[in-house]
Amino acid sequence: MPAYKVTYFNVKGLAEPMRYLLAYGNIDYEDVRVERENWPALKSNMPMGQIPVLEVDGKKAHQSVSICRYLGKQVGLGGANDWENLEIDSVVDTMTDFRLKITAVHQETDPDLQAKKREVLEKEHFPFYLEKLEAIATENNGHLAVGKLTWADIYFASLFELLNVLAKRNMTDGFPHLKKLIDTVQSIDSIKKWIAKRPVTEM
Amino acid sequence: MPAYKVTYFNVKGLAEPMRYLLAYGNIDYEDVRVERENWPALKSNMPMGQIPVLEVDGKKAHQSVSICRYLGKQVGLGGANDWENLEIDSVVDTMTDFRLKITAVHQETDPDLQAKKREVLEKEHFPFYLEKLEAIATENNGHLAVGKLTWADIYFASLFELLNVLAKRNMTDGFPHLKKLIDTVQSIDSIKKWIAKRPVTEM
Repeated sequence: MPAYKVTYFNVKGLAEPMRYLLAYGNIDYEDVRVERENWPALKSNMPMGQIPVLEVDGKKAHQSVSICRYLGKQVGLGGANDWENLEIDSVVDTMTDFRLKITAVHQETDPDLQAKKREVLEKEHFPFYLEKLEAIATENNGHLAVGKLTWADIYFASLFELLNVLAKRNMTDGFPHLKKLIDTVQSIDSIKKWIAKRPVTEM
Repeated sequence: MPAYKVTYFNVKGLAEPMRYLLAYGNIDYEDVRVERENWPALKSNMPMGQIPVLEVDGKKAHQSVSICRYLGKQVGLGGANDWENLEIDSVVDTMTDFRLKITAVHQETDPDLQAKKREVLEKEHFPFYLEKLEAIATENNGHLAVGKLTWADIYFASLFELLNVLAKRNMTDGFPHLKKLIDTVQSIDSIKKWIAKRPVTEM
């Protein structure tokens, strides 16, 4: 078994999907949580000056979605062929599009602009993305791709812990397949154990 | 050979990387270019109401980067193993981060805000991303991952046709490995032939 290390801040955020996947695979790893005041000294050691970073036997990888795709394959949650992987990848990219709509509002520093952007988010982007994802889950036996559990489902359940905080609501209210999917993932024994023992953080 | 169809507007944009990859693989395909006035009628037929869309034997796929990863594998330009694919995927995700910084400026409708964002883009994001990508190419034998030609290189060469227009400059000026990489890709016989025969469009 290779030596795995996840480096991120002491938040769930973009590292939590990889922590879920490592838990799912019962893979031991070092869960390094950098305090904000120590980050400037560490930043230049990271491939793009960003975290999360995954290390495997000392080799560093960056970009959270790419890392989750890699880990998904390691724990047996990839597609059965290239076309299935395309289906998985495209729904994950759709989640990224949605995440970026939400973080753009969160990061807007001008209060008037932020209010305007939040209105567009709530009136247009929330229904658009959530209805599409709900329809996908309805067509895929409660999953987000290829009709069975894949890393896209794990990614979704963990990402929504962050997105719900940023969106200031439980976004799966009113979307029963999405809500059930999160329950399904979080009820997997190894993930349930991880959630029970992980550090308590807001984001 | 499956029947391939690419549907997009009559621009290079986000479809051009897939057109390059199909050219590289000498794969015949239907190159559908939708006129803007016909788009509203077609939109609801597309998986997320967006294009580009790739069809393979009538099955639709969306999300341009996911599609390019799929096509990259079909034409033999994927990694040799999961770790190599992670390296390829992460540099492509970095290009997406860079693209989104550039398109955010392009899409800003407030002229004052746009000027401010353009200044940040030029002073911070251009040097940051271009220096990083140049360093990666220097370390990878003139390529962007795993020391040899992969779909990340094809993606880069075609994406930069769009990004240079949006950035209002030839961004590879002063970055010899990146400039040479684009030349290398565009000199591949099948891609050279595609560039010579494709519709002439600005973007």
